[in-house]
Amino acid sequence: MFAPRSIKHCRACGGAVAYRTPADDNRERATCTVCETIHYENPLNVVGTLPVWGEKVLLCRRAIEPRHGLWTLPAGFMELGETTEQGALRETVEESGAHVALEGLFSLINVVRVGQVHLFYRARMLDDDFVPGPESLEARLFDEAGVPWDEIAFRTTRMTLEFFFADRRANRFVLHTADVG
Amino acid sequence: MFAPRSIKHCRACGGAVAYRTPADDNRERATCTVCETIHYENPLNVVGTLPVWGEKVLLCRRAIEPRHGLWTLPAGFMELGETTEQGALRETVEESGAHVALEGLFSLINVVRVGQVHLFYRARMLDDDFVPGPESLEARLFDEAGVPWDEIAFRTTRMTLEFFFADRRANRFVLHTADVG
Repeated sequence: MFAPRSIKHCRACGGAVAYRTPADDNRERATCTVCETIHYENPLNVVGTLPVWGEKVLLCRRAIEPRHGLWTLPAGFMELGETTEQGALRETVEESGAHVALEGLFSLINVVRVGQVHLFYRARMLDDDFVPGPESLEARLFDEAGVPWDEIAFRTTRMTLEFFFADRRANRFVLHTADVG
Repeated sequence: MFAPRSIKHCRACGGAVAYRTPADDNRERATCTVCETIHYENPLNVVGTLPVWGEKVLLCRRAIEPRHGLWTLPAGFMELGETTEQGALRETVEESGAHVALEGLFSLINVVRVGQVHLFYRARMLDDDFVPGPESLEARLFDEAGVPWDEIAFRTTRMTLEFFFADRRANRFVLHTADVG
């Protein structure tokens, strides 16, 4: 999560940190006042899928904060040691228990305020046998009319769903890029 | 840069950190033995452009390590407070001094070994007036035959250039996704 100026101590030596602009840089960085290590803070990727089964899409109802009880697409923070695709698949299995095949990057949405980039892949469900994981209260298939639009957890989920239904009506899927504040 | 298990001290309190698997997690995280803060480590985005002027592309020769003296596309770590597009534009200005208009995401390449995702945008140069910044020894326009293929700094630069020239021959540009080890 984007928490500017949240670094108080050096991860290398434990010394106190001060925010200073390094000589070869143009913005303030958390710099150790003891060992001079510079600690960079950068945006993180959230990776997930839009699982599709026939006319329906799979949503998960969140069992965790934030937005407990609201509906979302399976997604979570990308981890070290995996690709964006592997992360999207992992999150899909962990949160929805669905078996899917990825069908290409579908949306890339910058969420500047929290320092995140959300990447969603279209995914073809291989069967309709899914068991939600511990981070989901339930997982359920919805057709467009049935999507609980008033109970969607995140703007990027809503936008990705809207892009999907619009593209399906147009009978062609393209990459959608967008920014939210 | 991907430096696994590099956290020795807590950024919040300075206490010693141990790598442990939190109760609701499935991998080891740097966990403070004093205040119990969990420190996550995740991949970072590198954002840049492929600047095009007529038949030519703009490359920069690196004035910094790694790969000092080798040629690359303008790119660097995405910063907090900016979108992927804004970061790509900023890096282009900083490293090449070129004036460009972005023309869409062109490549997304996972570099798993170093925990990075490289995102390149095609960019139309608005003029051929460019002044390289302090991180570049020089910037120069190359046609395809002139590209110094044996002196390219990074695999993701090479791949993005290869995708570009192939797409240009095919007279259509699409998003390219790839993974390198």
